[in-house]
Amino acid sequence: MFRNQYDNDTTVWSPQGRLFQVEYAMEAVKQGTVTVGLKSKDYAVLVALCRASSDVDSLQRKIMSVDAHMGISISGLTADARQLCHYLRTECMAYRHSYDTEYPIKRFVESLGNKMQATTQSYNRRPYGVGMLVAGYDVNGAHIYQVMPSATVLNCKSMAIGSRSQSARTYLERNMESFENCDMDELVCHGIQAIRGSLGNEDLQDLTINAAVVGKDMPFKVLTDSDNQRCLIQAKGMGKPVVDEFVDAFSEKGISDDDDEQGPSGSGMPRSDDVSTTGS
Amino acid sequence: MFRNQYDNDTTVWSPQGRLFQVEYAMEAVKQGTVTVGLKSKDYAVLVALCRASSDVDSLQRKIMSVDAHMGISISGLTADARQLCHYLRTECMAYRHSYDTEYPIKRFVESLGNKMQATTQSYNRRPYGVGMLVAGYDVNGAHIYQVMPSATVLNCKSMAIGSRSQSARTYLERNMESFENCDMDELVCHGIQAIRGSLGNEDLQDLTINAAVVGKDMPFKVLTDSDNQRCLIQAKGMGKPVVDEFVDAFSEKGISDDDDEQGPSGSGMPRSDDVSTTGS
Amino acid sequence: MFRNQYDNDTTVWSPQGRLFQVEYAMEAVKQGTVTVGLKSKDYAVLVALCRASSDVDSLQRKIMSVDAHMGISISGLTADARQLCHYLRTECMAYRHSYDTEYPIKRFVESLGNKMQATTQSYNRRPYGVGMLVAGYDVNGAHIYQVMPSATVLNCKSMAIGSRSQSARTYLERNMESFENCDMDELVCHGIQAIRGSLGNEDLQDLTINAAVVGKDMPFKVLTDSDNQRCLIQAKGMGKPVVDEFVDAFSEKGISDDDDEQGPSGSGMPRSDDVSTTGS
Amino acid sequence: MFRNQYDNDTTVWSPQGRLFQVEYAMEAVKQGTVTVGLKSKDYAVLVALCRASSDVDSLQRKIMSVDAHMGISISGLTADARQLCHYLRTECMAYRHSYDTEYPIKRFVESLGNKMQATTQSYNRRPYGVGMLVAGYDVNGAHIYQVMPSATVLNCKSMAIGSRSQSARTYLERNMESFENCDMDELVCHGIQAIRGSLGNEDLQDLTINAAVVGKDMPFKVLTDSDNQRCLIQAKGMGKPVVDEFVDAFSEKGISDDDDEQGPSGSGMPRSDDVSTTGS
Amino acid sequence: MFRNQYDNDTTVWSPQGRLFQVEYAMEAVKQGTVTVGLKSKDYAVLVALCRASSDVDSLQRKIMSVDAHMGISISGLTADARQLCHYLRTECMAYRHSYDTEYPIKRFVESLGNKMQATTQSYNRRPYGVGMLVAGYDVNGAHIYQVMPSATVLNCKSMAIGSRSQSARTYLERNMESFENCDMDELVCHGIQAIRGSLGNEDLQDLTINAAVVGKDMPFKVLTDSDNQRCLIQAKGMGKPVVDEFVDAFSEKGISDDDDEQGPSGSGMPRSDDVSTTGS
Amino acid sequence: MFRNQYDNDTTVWSPQGRLFQVEYAMEAVKQGTVTVGLKSKDYAVLVALCRASSDVDSLQRKIMSVDAHMGISISGLTADARQLCHYLRTECMAYRHSYDTEYPIKRFVESLGNKMQATTQSYNRRPYGVGMLVAGYDVNGAHIYQVMPSATVLNCKSMAIGSRSQSARTYLERNMESFENCDMDELVCHGIQAIRGSLGNEDLQDLTINAAVVGKDMPFKVLTDSDNQRCLIQAKGMGKPVVDEFVDAFSEKGISDDDDEQGPSGSGMPRSDDVSTTGS
Amino acid sequence: MFRNQYDNDTTVWSPQGRLFQVEYAMEAVKQGTVTVGLKSKDYAVLVALCRASSDVDSLQRKIMSVDAHMGISISGLTADARQLCHYLRTECMAYRHSYDTEYPIKRFVESLGNKMQATTQSYNRRPYGVGMLVAGYDVNGAHIYQVMPSATVLNCKSMAIGSRSQSARTYLERNMESFENCDMDELVCHGIQAIRGSLGNEDLQDLTINAAVVGKDMPFKVLTDSDNQRCLIQAKGMGKPVVDEFVDAFSEKGISDDDDEQGPSGSGMPRSDDVSTTGS
Repeated sequence: MFRNQYDNDTTVWSPQGRLFQVEYAMEAVKQGTVTVGLKSKDYAVLVALCRASSDVDSLQRKIMSVDAHMGISISGLTADARQLCHYLRTECMAYRHSYDTEYPIKRFVESLGNKMQATTQSYNRRPYGVGMLVAGYDVNGAHIYQVMPSATVLNCKSMAIGSRSQSARTYLERNMESFENCDMDELVCHGIQAIRGSLGNEDLQDLTINAAVVGKDMPFKVLTDSDNQRCLIQAKGMGKPVVDEFVDAFSEKGISDDDDEQGPSGSGMPRSDDVSTTGS
Repeated sequence: MFRNQYDNDTTVWSPQGRLFQVEYAMEAVKQGTVTVGLKSKDYAVLVALCRASSDVDSLQRKIMSVDAHMGISISGLTADARQLCHYLRTECMAYRHSYDTEYPIKRFVESLGNKMQATTQSYNRRPYGVGMLVAGYDVNGAHIYQVMPSATVLNCKSMAIGSRSQSARTYLERNMESFENCDMDELVCHGIQAIRGSLGNEDLQDLTINAAVVGKDMPFKVLTDSDNQRCLIQAKGMGKPVVDEFVDAFSEKGISDDDDEQGPSGSGMPRSDDVSTTGS
Repeated sequence: MFRNQYDNDTTVWSPQGRLFQVEYAMEAVKQGTVTVGLKSKDYAVLVALCRASSDVDSLQRKIMSVDAHMGISISGLTADARQLCHYLRTECMAYRHSYDTEYPIKRFVESLGNKMQATTQSYNRRPYGVGMLVAGYDVNGAHIYQVMPSATVLNCKSMAIGSRSQSARTYLERNMESFENCDMDELVCHGIQAIRGSLGNEDLQDLTINAAVVGKDMPFKVLTDSDNQRCLIQAKGMGKPVVDEFVDAFSEKGISDDDDEQGPSGSGMPRSDDVSTTGS
Repeated sequence: MFRNQYDNDTTVWSPQGRLFQVEYAMEAVKQGTVTVGLKSKDYAVLVALCRASSDVDSLQRKIMSVDAHMGISISGLTADARQLCHYLRTECMAYRHSYDTEYPIKRFVESLGNKMQATTQSYNRRPYGVGMLVAGYDVNGAHIYQVMPSATVLNCKSMAIGSRSQSARTYLERNMESFENCDMDELVCHGIQAIRGSLGNEDLQDLTINAAVVGKDMPFKVLTDSDNQRCLIQAKGMGKPVVDEFVDAFSEKGISDDDDEQGPSGSGMPRSDDVSTTGS
Repeated sequence: MFRNQYDNDTTVWSPQGRLFQVEYAMEAVKQGTVTVGLKSKDYAVLVALCRASSDVDSLQRKIMSVDAHMGISISGLTADARQLCHYLRTECMAYRHSYDTEYPIKRFVESLGNKMQATTQSYNRRPYGVGMLVAGYDVNGAHIYQVMPSATVLNCKSMAIGSRSQSARTYLERNMESFENCDMDELVCHGIQAIRGSLGNEDLQDLTINAAVVGKDMPFKVLTDSDNQRCLIQAKGMGKPVVDEFVDAFSEKGISDDDDEQGPSGSGMPRSDDVSTTGS
Repeated sequence: MFRNQYDNDTTVWSPQGRLFQVEYAMEAVKQGTVTVGLKSKDYAVLVALCRASSDVDSLQRKIMSVDAHMGISISGLTADARQLCHYLRTECMAYRHSYDTEYPIKRFVESLGNKMQATTQSYNRRPYGVGMLVAGYDVNGAHIYQVMPSATVLNCKSMAIGSRSQSARTYLERNMESFENCDMDELVCHGIQAIRGSLGNEDLQDLTINAAVVGKDMPFKVLTDSDNQRCLIQAKGMGKPVVDEFVDAFSEKGISDDDDEQGPSGSGMPRSDDVSTTGS
Repeated sequence: MFRNQYDNDTTVWSPQGRLFQVEYAMEAVKQGTVTVGLKSKDYAVLVALCRASSDVDSLQRKIMSVDAHMGISISGLTADARQLCHYLRTECMAYRHSYDTEYPIKRFVESLGNKMQATTQSYNRRPYGVGMLVAGYDVNGAHIYQVMPSATVLNCKSMAIGSRSQSARTYLERNMESFENCDMDELVCHGIQAIRGSLGNEDLQDLTINAAVVGKDMPFKVLTDSDNQRCLIQAKGMGKPVVDEFVDAFSEKGISDDDDEQGPSGSGMPRSDDVSTTGS
């Protein structure tokens, strides 16, 4: 276990050129519930799984509006997310004030990434423990961006982060070609299906979904509970998503193959993660 | 005991993506006496258990008024709570001065959460060792918020924190549907019953209760000793609360099942905590 | 002895949610000589035990005047106390200058507590090693407050801190109902009796007492040596205080039961302390 | 393993006069995919290998435009690269604003190097984990510069950095004399061939190439996907590059000879690296 | 040797509520040569033992004038003393400038104590390694104050600090009643006798004394060598001081009983020290 | 290996009064290739050995011009050298601007030394890892100065630093009397011969030399490649330099006697180094 | 070897009240070559031993002029000395500018001592590694001061510091009575003899001396090489100095008795050092 010598400080490199503290912060994202983002030509949607709890009054906290043309869905530490969201809203207001126009989404996520990068190179703060999917619509069309604790910013067609999100990503990749011309409801349904895919044999019965949409002539809007319910029913009509037959057949084994259980003690991060997180 | 390598600093992530120092600070909340918050359509009440001590002159310190429309009940380190309360009162006064209206409660608790989040990401301070229930009433109605050392902010229908608070939460969940139309006294009585539930076989005889109410046309008010006494008698008339038959029958075993005894060395935090504390 | 891993820094929580450095600073208070505070309807008095030393010129340093309506008695590090007292006097002068009235005692002790709280949450300073009893009189009557290194502030009817103070507290609790209508001299005598109670079989012969009073139409005044002597004689006339027969009979055993000898290595702090120091 | 005593801090020298933390940051560059830069008399080109991923929307992030006459290609942590690129663009704009001319490339890379040097001598930040190839064209002609985490700046005729880049460098050195009079497309093809050389037996089929050019009367331009495709086909027409027959014949052994597998635990860095990274 | 875990930092409390670094700094005082201070009704004198050294040109550095009505005698690190003395002179000048009168000695030593207290509570400085006796005369008469590294300030009738000072203190206590009406020369002689008492069987022959006086109508004055010599002869005429017969008879044993040899590894500091250094 | 306890921090002295971190930084100089400086009455020259590398475009980086009358040759970390050189150029420009004359070389190198000294006494930076030879010409004639990581500044007649520089120094000392009246080309040739001496049996064939001159009516000039080539041929005509017959005969042994291989683990630094580096 | 626990930080006291880091810095002074200072009624001279080195151009760096009436001779780290000397010159200039007179030497060395004291009480810097002898002449006559890393300032009749300086001090003490009426040349010769005394059987043949004088109507002047040579010859005429017959007879044993070999691991510092360095 030699690696432990290098994992106590964000500013210490391991001999293999890794920053373990940043990788550990990535693990915090995997402990949050799954959230997905996907887009068609004209719309971008975010769908998040919420755990039901009878004594909680409102559930909208996993998807947050940032500006009229943009919002985020988070997985990880909610306190970190809220603090970042507060920063982002202030940034957007300042941009509107200075330039009298909305913040271009590409520049916006790069600014967010730079803010998060600072915590990965500084002695006296820890990396943020939250991953974000940004859905927005600007003159360049609909966008889904993934921003992670490692401060990597990825322009995605669709993406899922959080607990067991690998299965959700598999669903999204298999159905990606059909998203292009979906309307909003269809996109939300695909997002729900992707989440259902990540849940294995658990049924959707006792789960709560939270969704938001943004797009052409459509400001960012968090859906109401009735909208969520309508989409859930519509998604159920699409049948149980077939994510990975092998996994379904041998679900225990399947779960242990999942990257969530592998963690940083594995021999390496899977290739697809390699692209989306730190390597380049 | 490998985890110890990562639990000496707030800014160090464990390989599993956990912040142990933040989790330890959550334990400080469990060492305080229990306090509950619950609300009806028009009112929000806080009830706190106070340990009697003959040489102490006043007991109101567990519930503190913050502004005319809002107050807090705390569990954990009183010194941290008092320092935060001082900050909160200043914030409310500044808000009134700037906007000539009361601080909207949702924004208020988010600001409080952001202040506490800073201590969880900074090298040179420790996380606060106090949990808070915020009861308030504004244009959006009555609110109960839970704010914890992890800086999570939870909009609750009812909530209990502190020593053996799980049993109190169980009582609250079972009776939640009846709170909606309660008047203030009934709410306080339910709060007392919830606290009685957390005390197992100990009788209420030698215990002291402190309560506060806020609501429609009703500024935040800490009840007088006589009011407290009246409510105690009224609550006794409701009979001994049945929280968990199994626990009552085998109280020793029951207590050892409680999350208070489990602490951070358990295999994980219970699911319901998972929602309310760090994960999302 | 796993706890040692968490006791080197004020900003590190133990897995049980304790701050060991703060608890250790509480021990410094127990190493000072005993001091007591008690009050009647109209007066508050402080009595402190001073060790006699032939080469020392003046003994008044354990009780210090802060303002015309308030003074403190300390136990622990005198250097810390003097520095705090200097701060407090400056605060009172500033308050008078700003508001042209005396500092309300409740607000005063909260401000003091907040100053001390800062040292329990900061990386680069240690908690103060001194406990204080504040005696004051304002429009709300006579007050005795206890302020400890943990920054807890307790509004007391009577209180004793310092070496073997548990026995003094026992005396105070047993006689509390008779304080209400005492005049100043009687209060001082009760204070002396409480201190005598804490001394076991040692006689009062070779000990020196320092006392101070404040109250209605009576600015804070440290008594002269002749006043002290007069009260000592009066107190002796009240007979040897019966604190705890069992302790007197088996004094060695009795002392080892005392919380002063127990220290932080015990299984927990006694319940009454639990209230007055950190828990809430 | 004595060396470990000196590799936890950027500001600590080893007894041999090495800065291990800087060397470890160099390893992060080797974990990125390979990128090459080469130049003719009038043009400088950058070619980078991108891993394909179906859910990613755009791939241009490995080559970034900095100013009209200059751009960079990176290998290592993308978040660090993006933050540096943001800084570089601001610097170029400021230079244009001050001097009304473009930033001379030699001075530009020295300024960049000095910014990176600061992180290798400072206690509270880590060295950047990214290597860069800078391609530019100014009054002194076309330039390829290599800037590494050690803050060394090297004026190159051609260079390759990233995973298995040694083989790409071998290809470039063998064909260097033919670059002088190449046109842009030919340069890009040579770049592609160098990358192919680094891939061993993997075919180019499922890989994506990203290229950029700058030169005489030719502002820095990132090629479009169709341009990339055209060059790929043209490069395939040049046949499989013969990098190292021995390596091809015994590819496993060949790979283990590669500097990527050697890492900092080897007996020393290869001589050519010695020149280009830290020694002088 | 568990205590070692808590003795590396001024800001760390031991489990017993002690600050070991402060106690260690007290040891530095014991390593200096002995110095005594004593006073009559109208005069205060300081006498210091100086080790003779043929190559040193002047010996006045152990007693330093601070202002016209005040001076100090030091034991411990001279560099720390000189730096403090520089500070004190500046303070006195500033006081005279502001209030056009001399600095009251009680306030002066409290200000000095507060300056020293800061170093016992701060992370980045060490406690001062010097003890001081302050002799002064103001409207309240003659004063001898002891100020120690622990920042305690003690108003004394007479005091001795430094190597083997316990014996000197014994002499002073035994003869204290005779000081009240002494003239200056007699006081100096008593001071010399106290120092002789601390030297056991060593003769005064080859030792050098340095003395200073201050008092009614008598500004602070360091005596000349001839004055010193005159007083030495006068003191010799008083005979060998009888400090502790037992110690003289068994001097080896006597020395090992001395507090200088006991150091901080003893089971506790002697009671008299307890009063004068940290406890209260 | 007790010494390791004191070699992790620039601000920690070893019990022998050594600063190991500074000595380790001196080792970094020995890892660079050799460079020599020598002077006649009117000229000062710098000659540096450059390792050839086919993919590098320019080699002048080991000798850098600072001002019209001065330049430096470096051995060690090039990034540190470049950063220092940038500082030096700015200093020279500022001096010219302020005083309208060139920076006197003695004051210049002392200012440089003071800048480097700061890094040897400061907690948060490491000592520079580069040695420098400064060649200049001012009203006091030609100068060669050696400035090392220990911040020592040495006014030399001739000097060599870097890998195996001891042999080069031996050559220079043996031929020093002949330098006084050399012309520039002869000085460069002697410099080349000194470098050849340090290379043992390696031939000069495949090595590259970089040289620079400054002197009377001769601004600092880095020689062109053709000038270098001409001098190389001229130097070859002088025959193989005889540095140390014993070393040549038993070169392996000879090399192991060299101070470069000895490093800081040897029993001490050789006497001549003792003079030129830290002791005085 | 328990003492090692307390010797890593300037701000940490050992249990015996010692500051090991300061003592270690004292060792650095002993590693420099010996230098002596002595004075007559009207003159003060400094003499320093310089190690000859053929490639060094100038040797005057061990004695430095500070102002017209003052100069220093150093032993230890030259870089620290140069930085301090730069500071001292600036101070003297500022003093002249403010008061239009020369800096009184006593105040000057106290200011220097205070500057050095700051590094012995500060966390982030190390104590200076250089000892200094200050020779000056002002209205109070000729002065020799010793200033050491411990920040002690000693007004001396004569003093020697550096390697094997104990023997030089012995010579000086034995001949001190003859210095009073020496002229300058005689003083320099005595200084040379003291240095010869410290060299044991080594002959003076191949050693270089550097001397400086200051005095009545005689500004501080570093002697020229011819002056040095003249004095050397004159000193040789005085015969070999007899320092310690025993040491000469058994020189090996004699050297191991020397304080240079004893270092900080000895049981204590010799008494004479005790006076001059830290104790008081």
